[in-house]
Amino acid sequence: MQKPTLPKGTRDFGPEQMRKRLFIFDTIRQTFQRFGFQPLETPSMENLSVLMGKYGDEGDQLLFKILNSGDFAAGLTEPDLQSGSKNITPKIAEKGLRYDLTVPFARYVVMNRHALPLPFKRYQMQPVWRADRPQKGRYREFYQCDADVVGTDSLLCEAEIVLMIHEVFRNLNIQDFTLKINNRKILSGIAEVIGRPGQEGTLSVAIDKLDKIGRGKVLDELRERGFSDDAITSLEPLFAFDDLSTDQVLTQLETWLATSATAQQGITELRETLQLAAQYGLTDTHVQIDPTLARGLSYYTGAIFEVKANGVSIGSVSGGGRYDNLTGTFGMPGLSGVGISFGVDRIYDVMDELNLFPAGAGQGTRVLIVPFDAEARAVALPLLSQLRASGVAAEVYPDLVKVKKMLDYANAKAIPYVVLIGSEEVQTGELTVKNMLTGEQQKLRKDDILAFMQEKSE
Amino acid sequence: MQKPTLPKGTRDFGPEQMRKRLFIFDTIRQTFQRFGFQPLETPSMENLSVLMGKYGDEGDQLLFKILNSGDFAAGLTEPDLQSGSKNITPKIAEKGLRYDLTVPFARYVVMNRHALPLPFKRYQMQPVWRADRPQKGRYREFYQCDADVVGTDSLLCEAEIVLMIHEVFRNLNIQDFTLKINNRKILSGIAEVIGRPGQEGTLSVAIDKLDKIGRGKVLDELRERGFSDDAITSLEPLFAFDDLSTDQVLTQLETWLATSATAQQGITELRETLQLAAQYGLTDTHVQIDPTLARGLSYYTGAIFEVKANGVSIGSVSGGGRYDNLTGTFGMPGLSGVGISFGVDRIYDVMDELNLFPAGAGQGTRVLIVPFDAEARAVALPLLSQLRASGVAAEVYPDLVKVKKMLDYANAKAIPYVVLIGSEEVQTGELTVKNMLTGEQQKLRKDDILAFMQEKSE
Repeated sequence: MQKPTLPKGTRDFGPEQMRKRLFIFDTIRQTFQRFGFQPLETPSMENLSVLMGKYGDEGDQLLFKILNSGDFAAGLTEPDLQSGSKNITPKIAEKGLRYDLTVPFARYVVMNRHALPLPFKRYQMQPVWRADRPQKGRYREFYQCDADVVGTDSLLCEAEIVLMIHEVFRNLNIQDFTLKINNRKILSGIAEVIGRPGQEGTLSVAIDKLDKIGRGKVLDELRERGFSDDAITSLEPLFAFDDLSTDQVLTQLETWLATSATAQQGITELRETLQLAAQYGLTDTHVQIDPTLARGLSYYTGAIFEVKANGVSIGSVSGGGRYDNLTGTFGMPGLSGVGISFGVDRIYDVMDELNLFPAGAGQGTRVLIVPFDAEARAVALPLLSQLRASGVAAEVYPDLVKVKKMLDYANAKAIPYVVLIGSEEVQTGELTVKNMLTGEQQKLRKDDILAFMQEKSE
Repeated sequence: MQKPTLPKGTRDFGPEQMRKRLFIFDTIRQTFQRFGFQPLETPSMENLSVLMGKYGDEGDQLLFKILNSGDFAAGLTEPDLQSGSKNITPKIAEKGLRYDLTVPFARYVVMNRHALPLPFKRYQMQPVWRADRPQKGRYREFYQCDADVVGTDSLLCEAEIVLMIHEVFRNLNIQDFTLKINNRKILSGIAEVIGRPGQEGTLSVAIDKLDKIGRGKVLDELRERGFSDDAITSLEPLFAFDDLSTDQVLTQLETWLATSATAQQGITELRETLQLAAQYGLTDTHVQIDPTLARGLSYYTGAIFEVKANGVSIGSVSGGGRYDNLTGTFGMPGLSGVGISFGVDRIYDVMDELNLFPAGAGQGTRVLIVPFDAEARAVALPLLSQLRASGVAAEVYPDLVKVKKMLDYANAKAIPYVVLIGSEEVQTGELTVKNMLTGEQQKLRKDDILAFMQEKSE
């Protein structure tokens, strides 16, 4: 018989990984909720008419499509067959798997627009699927955790996203991170002042690669794309912002981009965002203004955010920005919003590599009761119920086997405490509590065990 | 432009539904964890070689299949086309969506058998997909919440499932439910004593319909399937167990099925399971022994469980049983286990219909700060941060609009409290806290607001 396998690019998450992942999910969810974002879940499958054309040609190809049920091939003809896979697809598949959480969110807003109080703040934590070539750190199924507020262009929302990012990473115990901020209007202004107005798209695609290929090759690419030597020379100041404070960067940008009203608007927005964040009481800020930050995605119209953890070479762990037209593609134009997305898989990798998971993060069973015989088990079972009723995760080995086997089980499951019940314990009512890590033992009565284990489970 | 729609049989879950669903998920998860079950998640897609042939012919057809990426049709020929959809499928789809959580669990156990400490207790809470004809209460995407323990045949596991069911429904506030229990061996014994040994499958399929079509038609069906009049007459005692205590049912079964050693074994197992549950301290038991309970699925070999909520006409909300051969189909025979599955969608329907969601179940934002102007907002923002730091879900309306509009927003989101900050409040430092439900107002200083809101958020 063939051994079963997993589809390429997908993963099982066993108990230890799951407990750590649940810690991340819970932390993000609680932060979202404290900031007033409300939960939303959309179906895993969407009609292809909703998904297609939203992610570019490449995105369309990376969508997982679901074969129609029943006799899907009934209407297929030989000419269809010759027309190639791309033309056959719409005839045999009308649904696809969610590619991100943004398009389903936009669809939800449009379908519920009459009932939705605006501004609408929602968060969504669900898997998405992409038929990408799997490689290290890139999977075909992965979770996104998005929070968006739509229906207002108040910069208070940008400030709250700055706060929320600080809050999430503080709560996750990731102390050393950098939150890069930019504004699409600054990118537009740069394109203006170097004499290529409206070309910030091309400019961004090139500068986006700065970290990967370096300044020289970025400029080469711009040259290839028709940027003149003059334009490229005027770009010089862009590379001189390292190691400056946010205030200094903003002041320098003001001078450099003085002739662009758009840029000035972007600078004002950034300054106000940071001032508002300070009013909220944000002090230990990890913000860095990076005028080269573009994040590829062309739909950002205002603020652009990106978070990287320092000390590891793992890509960005969070990103987002403001957009002006979330739902335009579904016939509902002009809805402005701003959002942030946290990448659970990368956050997991960062925390794992830097050993940042707190000891109690998603702990499993706290105590195993070890009865030596049937008589002892009659003492064990009510204790087990009491422990669970006090919120302590507790187990008994289901079979009456050798004590060593039970202790091996506790060790294999990393259960930190066992309660040993032999005939002496049954008689005296004093049970032996053993710390499996230190080997330390003590005799305690039932009530004291309850109190002790409750304390050790917090 | 065409309005976007949802695929048939799928649903969005908006904020209010989601908060209630999260309450159910959290309750089940916490109970599972207290009983020592560990979390597992498997990918949404599995290879079709893993899924096909596990759910019968009908199941194979109800699997959602995923079109291969890339040029999937390249190898398709005209004869293929003529061979029909069923034969084309394996050529263009090698993956499918999870149909239940049991087969992926079995696959996981087999793939990780060398690293897995036995007994292995896992829980899994994930959506599954079935291309069923959608109808009221039946969806194409729905969640299952399963807990299983494999690698032991100890009846302690059955007892713990009985306890866990009581615990889950008590914690969910569903007080009025019935947990029906049976044992496959009793069904086998019945088949034996009526002279149709080994025919408990046919027998079960018919009796399973007792609730729906009544006793007369069940007997008709058995007659059609070749059961003699003698056999059917011998079946009489099966319909005389209503309104008996569990002890009485067991005693009557012992007498009726005295000649079947298998049945006696099943009766002993049931009795021991209930005795063990009592040893754990289970008193207010909702258990009813129902010798007609079969739950269709033929792979149960021991205990069979089913839970129904009383007072509503919604099908079973939970079910499970013991099986002897979870992983045999993947070449790893003889692994016994017992499991239980909770149906979140039906549990939701029960709680909604009976109005059982506790007031605090998954509450949203607790307080909206309402600053009258920019000066007031400077007071509002630090207060907002302090509230959130104290764990209170709090918001400020992002734009400085008319107070009425902000209060409308609070009402639309069902936010129970607002804090009004006008110029008087800024001067005195005494802010107005208003209960949006009663209209009651009081003036409180910042620190008192923190304490007050913390209390109101528990």
